[in-house]
Amino acid sequence: MNAPQKRSLTEPYSAYHRDALPEEDKELAHVERGSPGGEYLRRFWQPVALAAEVGELPKRIRMFGEDLVAFRAKSGRVGILELHCSHRGASLEYAVCEENGLRCCYHGWLYGVDGRVLETPGDPPESTLRFSICHGAYPALEYKGLVFGYFGPPENKPEFPIYDSFELQGDRLVPYYITYPCNWLQVHENVMDPVHAVFLHTRVTYSHFAADVWGELPAMEFPQTPTGMIYVTSRRWGDNVWVRSNDIILPNLAQVGHVWEDGAEPKEFSRVAITRWTTPVDNRTCRIIGWRHFSSDADPRGLADERQCGVESVDFFGQNGARPYEDRQKIPGDYDAQTSQRPIAIHALENLTRCDIGVATLRRLLRAELRRVANGEDPKLSPLRVNGLVPTYTHDTVVRVPARTGASPATDKEFVREIGRRITEIVVGGDHHTDPSRTERVRAMIRDYSAQQRMAVA
Amino acid sequence: MNAPQKRSLTEPYSAYHRDALPEEDKELAHVERGSPGGEYLRRFWQPVALAAEVGELPKRIRMFGEDLVAFRAKSGRVGILELHCSHRGASLEYAVCEENGLRCCYHGWLYGVDGRVLETPGDPPESTLRFSICHGAYPALEYKGLVFGYFGPPENKPEFPIYDSFELQGDRLVPYYITYPCNWLQVHENVMDPVHAVFLHTRVTYSHFAADVWGELPAMEFPQTPTGMIYVTSRRWGDNVWVRSNDIILPNLAQVGHVWEDGAEPKEFSRVAITRWTTPVDNRTCRIIGWRHFSSDADPRGLADERQCGVESVDFFGQNGARPYEDRQKIPGDYDAQTSQRPIAIHALENLTRCDIGVATLRRLLRAELRRVANGEDPKLSPLRVNGLVPTYTHDTVVRVPARTGASPATDKEFVREIGRRITEIVVGGDHHTDPSRTERVRAMIRDYSAQQRMAVA
Amino acid sequence: MNAPQKRSLTEPYSAYHRDALPEEDKELAHVERGSPGGEYLRRFWQPVALAAEVGELPKRIRMFGEDLVAFRAKSGRVGILELHCSHRGASLEYAVCEENGLRCCYHGWLYGVDGRVLETPGDPPESTLRFSICHGAYPALEYKGLVFGYFGPPENKPEFPIYDSFELQGDRLVPYYITYPCNWLQVHENVMDPVHAVFLHTRVTYSHFAADVWGELPAMEFPQTPTGMIYVTSRRWGDNVWVRSNDIILPNLAQVGHVWEDGAEPKEFSRVAITRWTTPVDNRTCRIIGWRHFSSDADPRGLADERQCGVESVDFFGQNGARPYEDRQKIPGDYDAQTSQRPIAIHALENLTRCDIGVATLRRLLRAELRRVANGEDPKLSPLRVNGLVPTYTHDTVVRVPARTGASPATDKEFVREIGRRITEIVVGGDHHTDPSRTERVRAMIRDYSAQQRMAVA
Repeated sequence: MNAPQKRSLTEPYSAYHRDALPEEDKELAHVERGSPGGEYLRRFWQPVALAAEVGELPKRIRMFGEDLVAFRAKSGRVGILELHCSHRGASLEYAVCEENGLRCCYHGWLYGVDGRVLETPGDPPESTLRFSICHGAYPALEYKGLVFGYFGPPENKPEFPIYDSFELQGDRLVPYYITYPCNWLQVHENVMDPVHAVFLHTRVTYSHFAADVWGELPAMEFPQTPTGMIYVTSRRWGDNVWVRSNDIILPNLAQVGHVWEDGAEPKEFSRVAITRWTTPVDNRTCRIIGWRHFSSDADPRGLADERQCGVESVDFFGQNGARPYEDRQKIPGDYDAQTSQRPIAIHALENLTRCDIGVATLRRLLRAELRRVANGEDPKLSPLRVNGLVPTYTHDTVVRVPARTGASPATDKEFVREIGRRITEIVVGGDHHTDPSRTERVRAMIRDYSAQQRMAVA
Repeated sequence: MNAPQKRSLTEPYSAYHRDALPEEDKELAHVERGSPGGEYLRRFWQPVALAAEVGELPKRIRMFGEDLVAFRAKSGRVGILELHCSHRGASLEYAVCEENGLRCCYHGWLYGVDGRVLETPGDPPESTLRFSICHGAYPALEYKGLVFGYFGPPENKPEFPIYDSFELQGDRLVPYYITYPCNWLQVHENVMDPVHAVFLHTRVTYSHFAADVWGELPAMEFPQTPTGMIYVTSRRWGDNVWVRSNDIILPNLAQVGHVWEDGAEPKEFSRVAITRWTTPVDNRTCRIIGWRHFSSDADPRGLADERQCGVESVDFFGQNGARPYEDRQKIPGDYDAQTSQRPIAIHALENLTRCDIGVATLRRLLRAELRRVANGEDPKLSPLRVNGLVPTYTHDTVVRVPARTGASPATDKEFVREIGRRITEIVVGGDHHTDPSRTERVRAMIRDYSAQQRMAVA
Repeated sequence: MNAPQKRSLTEPYSAYHRDALPEEDKELAHVERGSPGGEYLRRFWQPVALAAEVGELPKRIRMFGEDLVAFRAKSGRVGILELHCSHRGASLEYAVCEENGLRCCYHGWLYGVDGRVLETPGDPPESTLRFSICHGAYPALEYKGLVFGYFGPPENKPEFPIYDSFELQGDRLVPYYITYPCNWLQVHENVMDPVHAVFLHTRVTYSHFAADVWGELPAMEFPQTPTGMIYVTSRRWGDNVWVRSNDIILPNLAQVGHVWEDGAEPKEFSRVAITRWTTPVDNRTCRIIGWRHFSSDADPRGLADERQCGVESVDFFGQNGARPYEDRQKIPGDYDAQTSQRPIAIHALENLTRCDIGVATLRRLLRAELRRVANGEDPKLSPLRVNGLVPTYTHDTVVRVPARTGASPATDKEFVREIGRRITEIVVGGDHHTDPSRTERVRAMIRDYSAQQRMAVA
């Protein structure tokens, strides 16, 4: 499967000559059972619901186009079962949570979290039917307010990976999700598109993040990392240089820095504001689900609001479809831009430019990985661990390094880009990854580098 | 056409290995024109609307996937016509009821209840077009507040059958209907599933019928009758034995006993609480339509409420989708269990057990009958008549027969089953069917039998 | 492609014998890209929105099954662009109107009204991508409160045609539209169906236009004109004869006379009340869009109401679906009759009669024209012009010509028909078409003719 050919219009007023619409890039975008993308994504633990939603009542969910139910036995264990009872098909969203499992409302069959049939109480006690069949179940677990499932081949189930940013001291992780009526990929790849922040979030209507620095077109780099890739954006802001990286952990986990960063005050290796998976509900629906990180140093301007984070809601602008249509037209947000790229964006109609290198790189990495899995190999996983934690790379760093005296704008832009490259080397490379004090060590290295640069400039 | 093969999962956490979903059992479930099930069901009069709905304005209806209009000419006669005018296709739901027919709003064509074109008033008087064509019509009649249609081959139109339970003295028949967004069969076969009453209606959440006796797993039998089949459930309740039968008159008529029975007081051959057809609106929609029977002896605890019976409503728990989703999750009813078996239940995914013998028997009978019709034979009809009335078998009977002294629970359950069998022989067999005083005769026979048993026990 | 065969039912109660539904007449009805009807309709300027809707915000529209956006640059020029941005596909309904074009919200690409890419601001200044591609655009213009587009081959773009009735002195043209959930053809052809006015608008329920004269079955003719066809209806009303013509300008423009005409007062060549295109939104949706004409002599009874004309609304009865269903059943209007002819009317199920000659004629003309275009020829356009204006033929004329003394009703009907024919010759034929004072000249000719007839009668 290769991406379809593109044919652009080249004349004014030529829409009449538009060919029939090409198909979407099925290899990358489709997620149903047996699709290359779906099989690849199934090899990773995926969050499916807020733990708070999986309480006394079962929660109907949908993943990879399958209808399922997540539930919590009274013992506290969570389970993910196929929606329809193995007996007569009644939906388990109407079942009752019991001590050790979920009991179907219709004839009382009781299922364990693993799908074992524990009781078929309408049958005589000597019935052995329940030992010969299992209800469809997927492994499930709960972590920091989210319920996760593993939807891949049982023999390939990976350890649940814990990233360093999940366990940062002083961070409060608040779970939330937002459902998007479109394919997962176009939502996910937006994280590797720093240019949309310049236009969508700042220049085209007004500054969604209340800081003009976002409207500066940055120097950009898109290096790979042991877990995937990051973007590196570097901007001059007065005597400061702001270097920012967002992190994609393949396939569908992203970490985003603080949206209210304004580049005003020096900081080194300030960490994650959002950890989010973009999960494949079905080919035409996805869900951003994860945590907002709250900590005092991450919100110097006091604009964050934990109370807005939860079901279909988060505390920054334009992330869901709840606003009236005309308001969304006047000041569109991420939700409007991304869902409107068609239910499944058609790559063959795009005209990618230099500002889309991040998106193109991500697609190339995903395609390589899903083909690897389709060929029977394992997906690439990070080889690094710090006390069991996998290092991540999202950060905002602001260093006070004025432009060199007399430098032209072009020369300074190269200087700024060079600062971004060097800081990225510090963050991604080096031997600090297995150091329990990684954060402090990286910060010190950046401070040293920054001081050297200031001296060189002066 | 045979039912598709089933393949069950047999390992915990094995949902990943689920095959692609098999198809529904089309032979049994589908109802569109030319389908075996549809052609079989078309051989019987089917209720389509409440008479009260077919008044000054035509009533748009849908049956067997066809769009139709039921109407009442001012003469009082009811008719069922194809929805779209034979002239230019305008919908006859916008037509006007006149003395002898229905007049299309668009150009005034007038149709009789039989589809004859009575007027084409835009044409010159000498026009003969109206003699050369007929509008599509189905035979219709009105009976006890319901409008019925016959949708089968004209040459096979049966007499409208009147069952004894339609004409019981002291019974008030109150018409009602409820539309279900699912195939007719899964709703209909629930009548032959007495075990769901134990679990859905009693044990799993709480007692919908306010009587714990429903939660006792009964001895069960599923004998055939001259018109179809019944279930026989027999339960020990203190010194009493409660024997209950619900009746399926093939293909899609069911009669159900009283839902507020509590087994407390002796009664013999107490009759019908609900007469209901489950009609095929289309493959994925059906309608329960019929009557609630109201009489003083049928409601000793005063829980029935005639005012709740009508359009999309009936006077007992859980019969429609009007409750909020969360309430339906907390205490699901028949509507929730049955509609959630998928739009068309997939038999190949079921695991039927001994508690599903009634459902399996009903499917076998329906399949035999629809194949008979597909082969050009007539469906089986009851040969019995009492003054033109066809006997039916639904009843609740409570006899005071204590357990034999010293009998073990297992021995007593066999005794209870034997009492159920014998009472069923009295109700279904014998020579009383053509006796105008059948009811009294059956009751006397049961009383005799009950007295003998009491004596034998004592 | 030929229209499919028809098979009528001929027996009462024979709906069971209905064949499977035939298909719609795709050649005439379908409008998607490449369909014969769609390609024909694309050869004409089509109105797509009210100018008042295309203001600060772009307006999402749909035509010929294509999703588009109409917008107004701040310079005032209107444009019609493909909905999805050529860069990454975000919808231009969320774009910002600027001085010279429309700027996508996502990455700031700027498009001119002709589809030229004016800026790709995320790219380096030296980027030349924007010179090598064009965004899909259709020519657009604004005229008297409507925005029009041309959707055909650029090389065949016709001059925007102005009809004499667009520029009548004393006329106020108020734009409006109403969307119909059905194919365009069944809505359009209603204009050539004068008999529906007798039944739908007058006799079947009550007189929608408050004048009993509409209920008289008229003498009818359907002559062709240089631009298409008209109907000619002629009715006796006391000593008056009312001759009325509505005009179809091929393919989908219609002009309709005053709906409150009552035949009471003499008038000659009174002109247009409604100019309306029936536009193809997609195969199953159309839009009536055009102007209500307001002038004092067009509304002698004061029943018109300009304030009711606009988005999804017009000032006469039964033109949209806003009334409650039961009200629409009691007194159906055009909207109810036409939308209920199925989403796409099935001609093969119709039984056309002499009262449908206008509809049949229109279909024949359309079929001939669309085949001409499919064969590579140009559609027929009017050769006539008066100072650049194309003459049109809609009129109401009431002449005082009593029935001849002693004439039988049949004889008088022939006389009335003859008057209609002669007045139509005056209106359609003759050498007045290029006369700047055509209206006055036609009126004088009719007055002369009328006076002669009165003398002949007396």
